[in-house]
Amino acid sequence: MKHSPHLARLIEALRALPGVGPKSAQRMAFHLLQEGRPGARTLAESLTAALGCVRRCQRCRMLTEEPLCSICAASARDGALLCAVESPADVVAIEASGSYRGRYFVLMGHLSPLDGVGPEQLGVRELEAILAEGGVRELILATNSTVEGEATAHFLSELASARGIRASRIAHGVPVGGELEYVDGGTLAHALAGRQSL
Amino acid sequence: MKHSPHLARLIEALRALPGVGPKSAQRMAFHLLQEGRPGARTLAESLTAALGCVRRCQRCRMLTEEPLCSICAASARDGALLCAVESPADVVAIEASGSYRGRYFVLMGHLSPLDGVGPEQLGVRELEAILAEGGVRELILATNSTVEGEATAHFLSELASARGIRASRIAHGVPVGGELEYVDGGTLAHALAGRQSL
Repeated sequence: MKHSPHLARLIEALRALPGVGPKSAQRMAFHLLQEGRPGARTLAESLTAALGCVRRCQRCRMLTEEPLCSICAASARDGALLCAVESPADVVAIEASGSYRGRYFVLMGHLSPLDGVGPEQLGVRELEAILAEGGVRELILATNSTVEGEATAHFLSELASARGIRASRIAHGVPVGGELEYVDGGTLAHALAGRQSL
Repeated sequence: MKHSPHLARLIEALRALPGVGPKSAQRMAFHLLQEGRPGARTLAESLTAALGCVRRCQRCRMLTEEPLCSICAASARDGALLCAVESPADVVAIEASGSYRGRYFVLMGHLSPLDGVGPEQLGVRELEAILAEGGVRELILATNSTVEGEATAHFLSELASARGIRASRIAHGVPVGGELEYVDGGTLAHALAGRQSL
């Protein structure tokens, strides 16, 4: 059946959300317009507000509404360590592990020439400006373990080396608590190649 | 890590969507504020517009922005058949099957005394008004095959019978194309009990 125009437009707009297909979008729209009305109003308002306020951190490109994000603004963080990640969600994940006290640089993607994503789009100029300040002693490359992520890590490591800054790559191997039997071959090969002496 | 206030509020607001947990909400928020900005703006606008315009059909309670929904307004539909369903999504599903030319009545739920949902909340008064007009000859009960759905169907069937209107329940059984081997026992029992002579 044909939905009424505003309903159809809402269903179409909900498909802008990642992982939402036509069926989920319809379910969401019906929910928002029935029992979910107060939540729907809050969603529309907070979305408009966030679009107006939330920008990128001037230094690390993390999403924030201040000129500097809370991590770049915190004096307690170790400025000698800089960790390059692909997305804000990666920052959240590393912070949740509680094992890192340095700063971040959010690339907002990975090198992907076919999609028109080059060093410029990843903010490499801003990254070079931070490295040029001289405070960073190690650039930790925590891009994803995909072909593009590896290529991006390689590119950035050369950038760091050119300035005499140590570049390191996070370890890839068997997940903690994982059973060897269920780990894929590529990961196992990485785990073996990256073995460390005890 | 603590998100900035507007970002945190957006993530919280996105959880109003059905089936969206904290992790998906964060992923959606990051997407909407990065590459998804044009879509996010459209979403906020269409959500506000839909909240302002979309109401229930005065007759069948379907979601629409006109006083009457497109089905109630269509003279080509058979007014002698009225199909009671639990939600607007059920109307969409039945319409998609292309096998029904009557009208609908959307209960927007099922009888659930513990949740404070009684006949009043399901619009039974409006349904009775339609039945009182005298045009309806059969009330098809297409509520879900759950305890509450069955109870609601039973309640509505008595309502129809009291007015001398035929009440029918949609058939429950083995899905078309389904293999007996993989059908659950409750469905098989229904299929056997509802067998028809050839």
